[in-house]
Amino acid sequence: MGKGEQTRDAILDHAMRLASKVGLAGLSIGRLAADLEMSKSGLFAHFQSKETLQVQVLDRAGALFAATVVRPALAAPRGERRLRALFERWLDWTKTAGLPGGCLFVTAAVELDDRPGPVRDRLVALQKEWLDVIARVARTGIPEGHFAGNLDPDQLAHDLYAVMLGYHHAARLLRDPRAADRARAGFESLLTATRARRSA
Amino acid sequence: MGKGEQTRDAILDHAMRLASKVGLAGLSIGRLAADLEMSKSGLFAHFQSKETLQVQVLDRAGALFAATVVRPALAAPRGERRLRALFERWLDWTKTAGLPGGCLFVTAAVELDDRPGPVRDRLVALQKEWLDVIARVARTGIPEGHFAGNLDPDQLAHDLYAVMLGYHHAARLLRDPRAADRARAGFESLLTATRARRSA
Repeated sequence: MGKGEQTRDAILDHAMRLASKVGLAGLSIGRLAADLEMSKSGLFAHFQSKETLQVQVLDRAGALFAATVVRPALAAPRGERRLRALFERWLDWTKTAGLPGGCLFVTAAVELDDRPGPVRDRLVALQKEWLDVIARVARTGIPEGHFAGNLDPDQLAHDLYAVMLGYHHAARLLRDPRAADRARAGFESLLTATRARRSA
Repeated sequence: MGKGEQTRDAILDHAMRLASKVGLAGLSIGRLAADLEMSKSGLFAHFQSKETLQVQVLDRAGALFAATVVRPALAAPRGERRLRALFERWLDWTKTAGLPGGCLFVTAAVELDDRPGPVRDRLVALQKEWLDVIARVARTGIPEGHFAGNLDPDQLAHDLYAVMLGYHHAARLLRDPRAADRARAGFESLLTATRARRSA
């Protein structure tokens, strides 16, 4: 990796951590230049525009999420255990990844929902990819006999996303010390409902 | 209601609708003055500071939520039907209340989670009140025999909040046309899990 790339990655890492606190809109080239003791023109040489920077921060966070959550969880056995591994790593990911302001994607989702453009498009693409990963992992539980054949994996992916948004809300806004336990109980309810529908 | 109060309410209604799109941080006295063709000093006479305005916008939204969701739902029979009424009205509330940018509380939660102060405190108080209302309504289903005696009403309130955050994410960021159906299916899963635990 050349020096240019190293600098670019260092900028993106800093920007990603900052964005987890202040949102993507809070990423100004001026602020980053001051934080990193670089010139604004030096930063512009790497990113050309704030929008390019924002898209690359999202991509960087996506790569970190894949490395921290997805790839290790895929090492677990197919089916329910893999889904549980995915869920537990997801629950901890902002700590593991060292994001001080919580999940960047949750913040960005609310920031960007009314702002059409390439940054929003990139976020939507990343979120859909992630929902697809969850659905695919859930689907591996059907041939294993962990989940019923009538399981709707896309619904389960949506529901798990909701559980995680509830966790973020309880932990970060309400400072609820039981936020993680609440999220785990929500996850178990979803699995219980899946089993109840099978036996019904 | 005096003319002063009427003006104040008209400002708050406009500010609330604007905040549903741009967030509470986007509420500048200057922007409101321009939108409403008032002088900045006229607006300051009503609100003194941006922070006071933000707190009052939250209170106004809380009052609207109570009128649109809570009070009509409380007219439904105790227990499961009342909980369903609460859920359905909640799902539709931004449409019923005419909030063009979706739920103001969801946006504010992400905006304010890292910003200590009176606005955040007011939001947290309103959110806890609302979770308490859900838990109390869920609890009325126990003596009615709709829910098991071992139901944890606070967990159910947390879980329903998560379902609604998932709805907001799917509807507003992902523009998923099935967002409301997904939320309803998530709600049914929670009730199914409650029943499965009772019969287990």
